[in-house]
Amino acid sequence: MLPPGATIGILGGGQLGRMLAQAAASLGFDVHVFTDEEDSPASRVCARTTVAAYDDLDALRAFARSVSVVTSEFENVPAASAEALVSAGVPVWPDPRALAVAQDRASEKSFLNAVDVPTVAFAEVNSPADLEAALTTIPPPAILKTRRFGYDGLGQARLLQREDAASAWEKIGDRPAVLEAFCPFTTEISVIAARTHDGALAFFDICENRHEGGILRSTLAPARIPPAVADAARAAAARVARALGYVGVLTIEFFLRDDGALIANEMAPRVHNSGHWTIEGAATSQFEQHIRAIAGWPLGPTAALGVCAMENLIGEDVTRWTALAAEPGTHLHLYGKRDARPGRKMGHVTRVRRE
Amino acid sequence: MLPPGATIGILGGGQLGRMLAQAAASLGFDVHVFTDEEDSPASRVCARTTVAAYDDLDALRAFARSVSVVTSEFENVPAASAEALVSAGVPVWPDPRALAVAQDRASEKSFLNAVDVPTVAFAEVNSPADLEAALTTIPPPAILKTRRFGYDGLGQARLLQREDAASAWEKIGDRPAVLEAFCPFTTEISVIAARTHDGALAFFDICENRHEGGILRSTLAPARIPPAVADAARAAAARVARALGYVGVLTIEFFLRDDGALIANEMAPRVHNSGHWTIEGAATSQFEQHIRAIAGWPLGPTAALGVCAMENLIGEDVTRWTALAAEPGTHLHLYGKRDARPGRKMGHVTRVRRE
Repeated sequence: MLPPGATIGILGGGQLGRMLAQAAASLGFDVHVFTDEEDSPASRVCARTTVAAYDDLDALRAFARSVSVVTSEFENVPAASAEALVSAGVPVWPDPRALAVAQDRASEKSFLNAVDVPTVAFAEVNSPADLEAALTTIPPPAILKTRRFGYDGLGQARLLQREDAASAWEKIGDRPAVLEAFCPFTTEISVIAARTHDGALAFFDICENRHEGGILRSTLAPARIPPAVADAARAAAARVARALGYVGVLTIEFFLRDDGALIANEMAPRVHNSGHWTIEGAATSQFEQHIRAIAGWPLGPTAALGVCAMENLIGEDVTRWTALAAEPGTHLHLYGKRDARPGRKMGHVTRVRRE
Repeated sequence: MLPPGATIGILGGGQLGRMLAQAAASLGFDVHVFTDEEDSPASRVCARTTVAAYDDLDALRAFARSVSVVTSEFENVPAASAEALVSAGVPVWPDPRALAVAQDRASEKSFLNAVDVPTVAFAEVNSPADLEAALTTIPPPAILKTRRFGYDGLGQARLLQREDAASAWEKIGDRPAVLEAFCPFTTEISVIAARTHDGALAFFDICENRHEGGILRSTLAPARIPPAVADAARAAAARVARALGYVGVLTIEFFLRDDGALIANEMAPRVHNSGHWTIEGAATSQFEQHIRAIAGWPLGPTAALGVCAMENLIGEDVTRWTALAAEPGTHLHLYGKRDARPGRKMGHVTRVRRE
């Protein structure tokens, strides 16, 4: 067990890093944030910040020497950077292998299928010719997504008909991609699991998500799904976590089809926006749970404390802060971002109806 | 209403400042801590720290220019320092007048009596001769306390008989003092109230405290007291808050005598150790409530979410962290203090039995 007073390193300075840093501090850890952004949300709640590029190996090595363990708030840590940290002798959790799997949509889907977690049909696409070929096995409606660096609906294009191929290829910027079959669903859910070094697993209540324009808009927990579906989602997450020797919090998003089948949409090797309700709504928050796991501490209990609704504040939504601050029992979280650009996650609110 | 993104200044770098800073950050504020201590608990969770003496007026003026409002985690802010901040044009909440009243046991008790809040009998004592005289009206058992800078039982001496006068005077260090009648009580309680600029008041559930060696050991909330006693305690706190034009969280500790009378022991113009249970145990924490009040935001709801027991981790208690971290549902808070000196508050745990 990593003792309080030790320093935890976090790669990434956004809101997930910020909330991880706060949870770590409450348990008595110091936090050192490594980010490529000046004046980042996480840097304002931690003991120390390094501002450098994520591929600045000298800066990463100095960072490694200053911390007892490294974790990350995002999956796109360059492989060479993760290796530099590991070879500097500092443990990195989750393991860089989990990051590598999750940062490429093709390897992610292949991996999920290999551990018996169904995904939509997909095909690798590296050229307009590949795309034409892929559309014969995966006919429209389909979605073309860049293999790497996509989030919040960025790097995606929908194809409603074969004629959309050229514009879709152009929209995602002529980059290695996957073509995915469109999956009609009744509900989007996510399962948030945590696993320790010795293989203990814990699951938060499965939650139900609503996206708009590719961005998570709101989450309801516990999800209104049959117990058998919840069991299947947890079992799938357990297979993923075990196969990766995973340590930390892991999130898998699923589509629930109207025939009851679960189709994995994507995995995130980290705390997740759809788990923000756990701050007030679960016995342990996903942020504390992740810190416990990477620090070698036992996991905390995960029971939901009521029916929880989390709403993201995106872009100009944040101007509603005066009304939200006055709403009794609404827990307001603001991330300290300076500019409310469209599509930018500025904060969230959680409402808990206690049983 | 102070907008998110503004900077809140906190005087003091201890655990109260740390938890205030975390609450402020969650609401989107930046925090600038002013402390005379290097590597303080609060400095590791805030955006900016100034390390300087509390009477360094130049440093205070620079601090005032960098923040939108100033608050304090302790009552012993020198009067000249508070004035320097106010004349630099930055609002200071609670008002320096409340700090001045609370930092002197004689003025505190006189003030409480003036607003019809009973205290024990007391007498000002500035010399051994004064002490002899005081002992005729306040016979032993009695307690001699320094007028200023006492906390956690420091600066106090018990007199069980008149012959203890000389040793008591020596023990408190030959300083301006008050002699207080000993008050037999059945229960020690505290009321934690918050008041806004426009006079709105909110009260947390009254809690029941157990001290050992002058240091708070544990708190139970809600207190097991008759409703009429709780009403009387709240009414007394309301009179105090109104008379001071108070803004922020205010704590008053009372002795409950076996005849049902409430005797105010002391007031703290700040968040208080006996309110730590509110982090997990109330709809709004005392720290968020204080930030809301000083930022001109509406107060949050205060309902207790269950039966809450807070236990302080004092000195070597903190070595129990491995066991406490493994206790399901026990919320562990560690303050990041480097040395576990005897009597030092290193952290606390809260256990909530939800109804």
